[in-house]
Amino acid sequence: MAIPDKHAPRLINKGAAGRPARPPSGNVLIGQSGGPTVVINQSLVGIVQEARRHPEVFGRIWGARHGVAGILRDDLLDLDRETDANLERVALTPAAALGSVRKKPTREECLALFETLRRRDVRYLFYIGGNDSAETANIVLECARNENYPIRVIHVPKTIDNDLRVTDHCPGYGSAAKFVAQAFIGDNLDNRSLPGVKINIVMGRHAGFLSAASVLGRQFKDDGPHLVYVPEVAFDEHKFVQDVLAVHEKLGRCLVAVSEGVHDAAGVTVAEKLAARAERDAHGNVQLSGSGLLGDHLAGLVKAALPKARVRADTFGYLQRAFAGVFSGSDAEEARLVGVEAVKYALKETSGTVVLKRVPGPRYKCVTALAALEDVAKVTRALERRYINKAGNNITPAFLEYAGPLAGPLHPVGRLKGM
Amino acid sequence: MAIPDKHAPRLINKGAAGRPARPPSGNVLIGQSGGPTVVINQSLVGIVQEARRHPEVFGRIWGARHGVAGILRDDLLDLDRETDANLERVALTPAAALGSVRKKPTREECLALFETLRRRDVRYLFYIGGNDSAETANIVLECARNENYPIRVIHVPKTIDNDLRVTDHCPGYGSAAKFVAQAFIGDNLDNRSLPGVKINIVMGRHAGFLSAASVLGRQFKDDGPHLVYVPEVAFDEHKFVQDVLAVHEKLGRCLVAVSEGVHDAAGVTVAEKLAARAERDAHGNVQLSGSGLLGDHLAGLVKAALPKARVRADTFGYLQRAFAGVFSGSDAEEARLVGVEAVKYALKETSGTVVLKRVPGPRYKCVTALAALEDVAKVTRALERRYINKAGNNITPAFLEYAGPLAGPLHPVGRLKGM
Repeated sequence: MAIPDKHAPRLINKGAAGRPARPPSGNVLIGQSGGPTVVINQSLVGIVQEARRHPEVFGRIWGARHGVAGILRDDLLDLDRETDANLERVALTPAAALGSVRKKPTREECLALFETLRRRDVRYLFYIGGNDSAETANIVLECARNENYPIRVIHVPKTIDNDLRVTDHCPGYGSAAKFVAQAFIGDNLDNRSLPGVKINIVMGRHAGFLSAASVLGRQFKDDGPHLVYVPEVAFDEHKFVQDVLAVHEKLGRCLVAVSEGVHDAAGVTVAEKLAARAERDAHGNVQLSGSGLLGDHLAGLVKAALPKARVRADTFGYLQRAFAGVFSGSDAEEARLVGVEAVKYALKETSGTVVLKRVPGPRYKCVTALAALEDVAKVTRALERRYINKAGNNITPAFLEYAGPLAGPLHPVGRLKGM
Repeated sequence: MAIPDKHAPRLINKGAAGRPARPPSGNVLIGQSGGPTVVINQSLVGIVQEARRHPEVFGRIWGARHGVAGILRDDLLDLDRETDANLERVALTPAAALGSVRKKPTREECLALFETLRRRDVRYLFYIGGNDSAETANIVLECARNENYPIRVIHVPKTIDNDLRVTDHCPGYGSAAKFVAQAFIGDNLDNRSLPGVKINIVMGRHAGFLSAASVLGRQFKDDGPHLVYVPEVAFDEHKFVQDVLAVHEKLGRCLVAVSEGVHDAAGVTVAEKLAARAERDAHGNVQLSGSGLLGDHLAGLVKAALPKARVRADTFGYLQRAFAGVFSGSDAEEARLVGVEAVKYALKETSGTVVLKRVPGPRYKCVTALAALEDVAKVTRALERRYINKAGNNITPAFLEYAGPLAGPLHPVGRLKGM
């Protein structure tokens, strides 16, 4: 599947015309930022290991504790001390090994950042994160240009939300998709076993990719989730209840996936309406996770309409992004790959963000490219309309082709003949 | 570790004195009941496969759809049609393959049950479930005695709560413990990565075994959970907040495990107080799961005391009992074993419940025994006091010895040297 044109503007390394300039020598600094994933350390380790292969260019390799917050405080970690064996253990460990942060540096802070970078002679900055982190990387890069400070800034993508533009998908998504798919495989069987209405709130912020992954494990015709609500379609509470009643009438049970970011026609998220004082972080993001409000509210609506049914809601929460031991093999490999390639691009190019391009063909395969930071920063990508059914309450088979290889093989399910 | 004396009364098969009576021939009926586990079908398959080895005794092998509800309706499944290959697939599949039920039969329903049993010439009933299911099995057995209907009723234990008496532990618990432990491994890393206060509500009803499993993956000195609250200790909201503040002051973060069943000194669960109209099922159990109320409430308390901190709560919910792909190897083996042994006991003895006895020695090993149904029915077991610290807010190292082998190996974790 080729990347849609609108998602692939201005790839920097389209063709290597001319001879690349000799890369400047200097030290390396790596930061991690935003919500963790279970494979984010694969990228970190990929960067360190590849940088070590080029001692003629790269001097010291540092890690910033808690991203830009650490750079501001000159709180750096000496990654040269790490053995390969320990790095491999770290690679398999969920959540940011360097510590993470949700922080967009101000103009003043940017100047402070450069004090650290100058003092440490950092000429290569690798920043692993989502679109907010790409924005941070871009701010640093713009600052560097203003300051006439030569530095190559490479953003290395990660997010379970899969909401980065330009790239086919994001490292971190496949593993979270596998977690959600296997959670739904189990919960569908639980719901078959003790029938009722079950509503699961899935992460993903304002994109429906992770909620859509709830369908990846469907195998039998009556398998749930029977309804999937994503933020790309305006959420109507009345229609939601009617949909649930219809499925429950037909199957005697109903399993539902609801994105944490579902919102009304005016764009106000249901979670936001429910939380009188919704917390916002430094990037202006509303708190969508870490509370059971949305699930309990939707369960209440269904209970009122189906008073005799067993109605339950679960909010999958942070387990989706950091659960130890559930990860997708291809996701782990690609997370390592974008780290390794980030270093190679830093040697060849100036700055940018590493993206994945799917190679058309019968077997799933991705290669990397480098895109402009400003194309990934800030603005997010939505779940494409072709992956959502007409009624706006389910996911189409086309999505299986897209996301199946990213999540990888799922736990097999058997069913007794007579059931 | 030997089972404490008070947990091991009246083992039926203490010594096989005398020659066992020849088992009566007849048909077999199997039911599953109560909340699912990821290994409950291992027991089902163990029963079917072992029963097939004794065609001289057992005639047809049926499964009841949704436990006693299916027996009442004579809604049985022909398990003779199942191939071994499909049974092995089913064994690896979470949640009750026959469908489950939460139902305690009344006296009238018991008489109706016997119509099915008589008509089908069922002489062996295997009922897989927790203490409520043991109670159901016991009711059926008492009815059978009153009716002068010769039948052997074997209760096959399963529960993620691990709250059955007499047995060292319950099949189903080890896998749920592994899920909870790996969830906490990941969430501890998430909480290190983006510091704040994180509260996780863990299942287990009125027993703290599953919440205690949150500590199984602790590896470094500062690893969470830093506080664990179980229903065996009266829960004091003020003390809870003070405990959290103290850990947060020291570490700059705090990860907490709270049992869904925590209650005040008067025995009223916090969840019950929060849910104005707490749902109760047929066994009189309050709805503790499937809502985010308790977690949100506790997060609110901490937020009020620590207004600047990032405070989040997750309610692990039904994922703990049915997540596809996360199970403990020893748990799966033992769940199969109790099914196989149930059949062997049915051949040798009259009725009872299969229990696990830990064999003392350097390597973990369990054997089975048969105990009286009335010793397991109704009354539940609590987490032993020696597994809870003096302050009543954490778990002692002794618990690792008890539960470590049940959960099995956990996902390894690496940490950068400088962190």
